[in-house]
Amino acid sequence: MQEGSEMTVLQEELQRIGSLVDNHMAPHLSRRDPIRLWEAAYHLPKAGGKKLRPFLTINVCKALGGKEEDALPPAVAIELIQAFSLVHDDIIDRDNTRRGAPTVHKKWGIPTAIVAGDLLHIKAYDVVTKAAMTNPRLLRVLPNVINEINDSTVRICEGQELDEELEKETHPTENEYLEMISKKTASLFEAATTVGALAAESNSEALKSMRSFGHLLGMSFQIVDDLLGLTADEKELGKPVGSDIREGKRTLPVVYTLAKGSAQKRKIILETLGNRKASARQYSTAIKAMASTSALDYSKRKAEGYAQEARKKLLSLPESNERKLLDEALQFILERSY
Amino acid sequence: MQEGSEMTVLQEELQRIGSLVDNHMAPHLSRRDPIRLWEAAYHLPKAGGKKLRPFLTINVCKALGGKEEDALPPAVAIELIQAFSLVHDDIIDRDNTRRGAPTVHKKWGIPTAIVAGDLLHIKAYDVVTKAAMTNPRLLRVLPNVINEINDSTVRICEGQELDEELEKETHPTENEYLEMISKKTASLFEAATTVGALAAESNSEALKSMRSFGHLLGMSFQIVDDLLGLTADEKELGKPVGSDIREGKRTLPVVYTLAKGSAQKRKIILETLGNRKASARQYSTAIKAMASTSALDYSKRKAEGYAQEARKKLLSLPESNERKLLDEALQFILERSY
Repeated sequence: MQEGSEMTVLQEELQRIGSLVDNHMAPHLSRRDPIRLWEAAYHLPKAGGKKLRPFLTINVCKALGGKEEDALPPAVAIELIQAFSLVHDDIIDRDNTRRGAPTVHKKWGIPTAIVAGDLLHIKAYDVVTKAAMTNPRLLRVLPNVINEINDSTVRICEGQELDEELEKETHPTENEYLEMISKKTASLFEAATTVGALAAESNSEALKSMRSFGHLLGMSFQIVDDLLGLTADEKELGKPVGSDIREGKRTLPVVYTLAKGSAQKRKIILETLGNRKASARQYSTAIKAMASTSALDYSKRKAEGYAQEARKKLLSLPESNERKLLDEALQFILERSY
Repeated sequence: MQEGSEMTVLQEELQRIGSLVDNHMAPHLSRRDPIRLWEAAYHLPKAGGKKLRPFLTINVCKALGGKEEDALPPAVAIELIQAFSLVHDDIIDRDNTRRGAPTVHKKWGIPTAIVAGDLLHIKAYDVVTKAAMTNPRLLRVLPNVINEINDSTVRICEGQELDEELEKETHPTENEYLEMISKKTASLFEAATTVGALAAESNSEALKSMRSFGHLLGMSFQIVDDLLGLTADEKELGKPVGSDIREGKRTLPVVYTLAKGSAQKRKIILETLGNRKASARQYSTAIKAMASTSALDYSKRKAEGYAQEARKKLLSLPESNERKLLDEALQFILERSY
């Protein structure tokens, strides 16, 4: 994260919310029998993560006049949905490293990883349901919160399938790519901001704005993620550089180069994509082919475009500390180096 | 299923509930994009199944004075939890056949099967949440219904892990076995009867009785299932005979023979268990070793014992048609040949 006084306020807030989320999660996931399973389930949530989605839920709720205590359980639920989907995605993508640690299936095997992911999935519903049983405000919005979690998680599953299908295409279109990330990534950011607005019992107009804000921010986030996967180093990423290419992911720079690049550049990309045995030199040649087709610049501009649209939605809220923090988060997402 | 007028009433009711459940499920799972994923998700629910759990939910609700329309969505949710857990279990157990059809991972591959299972899991919550949004009675009990689904599904996950761990043991105890099936199988039967009682807005005493009834019936069901896995034929089972032995499952007859059998019989069992290349002759020798140790008789008596205890709980309900049907279901579970 960049040094600087403005970023520090955001950084402190992310840390504060990280602790809140961790503390709320702990009794749900702490050591119990069968120990092996619960350790596997707790592994990824314990390994950290930026807690960007819970940050969004809580700050959207407060920006709309709601209470942090009402937003925290839905925020934790969203973080658990994220954790569950990562555990299952890592099995599917055969990823060995995540957040700088071995993935769950790498450490405990695929059978336990499938079930550990299922447990995190259940716990997403459990944290919000149990909290609502003793919080009348949360109880009033519980059906809508659960409905939002359901709908976004269905879209995540669909996006996961589209991602797999896109990996087989030699002529992926930008629209196919955008639909895929809209479902696989943006939908959970959308759910994060929407449950925040629900927890504040907002009117339908504010709900709609915050839904769009989350969606647009999520689109921007994923495109920056695509770029970081190509340019950041392993320590920053928490996983090996080039894994998107190795797994054959149709990221935006890849889609752009396949559409606009010369025959020679297309050839370089297609030979490297999905080739788990490609050399470091081949990766670097593929990345250079994308850079020289302006695919990286194009992707950066696209991410900025979504962030600008997201900012417009944000400005529909009354001015507040929370709105300022949400705006800074948008900037952080564009400029982050991990 | 046996011929006979008494069984026919139950059979008709199972069929009637099967249609209700299928019709309620259809709009949630019918063909949409991405087609490949939704077909994979719908595959197992479409392949049939006895619908015993939804039958329990609906008949417990009605036996307690509740309405069928309030019990149907929770009943469908329980059936979807069952379907989701089977899809993931089949990946874990490397089963190729289920309900007479190829398993989801066999037909669509492991990545899509993981995600298809996740979709069914989400849909369990979705059917009950969406129904509650237009049904004030169901809305009142929604947090308790979801809480019950959460708690039982956590236990199913734990049971799945215990099952895997038990497969590695050469001296499994009956208590370990009973704890495993209590979580892996009986917990969902318990949830089925409990959500039925919740949908009827019953008092805590009736709730407690019906919880025990479901649990005890589930214990009986699993022990009979263990026996059928050894003695039924492939057409009845919908999967190959001997697959429990091939997968190294510590079923009750196995646990009993390992504890009480001669050294020679222990040896036969341990050489066959988990040996995916064992011959048909080896299976049949292993089954004979269990039979001659009275393991099959012992297991049958144990199943009958649980069914008797279950019947006592059932008799705490006032007499009704539904109570009679539930009693017949207990008998059917003991006597079923598939």
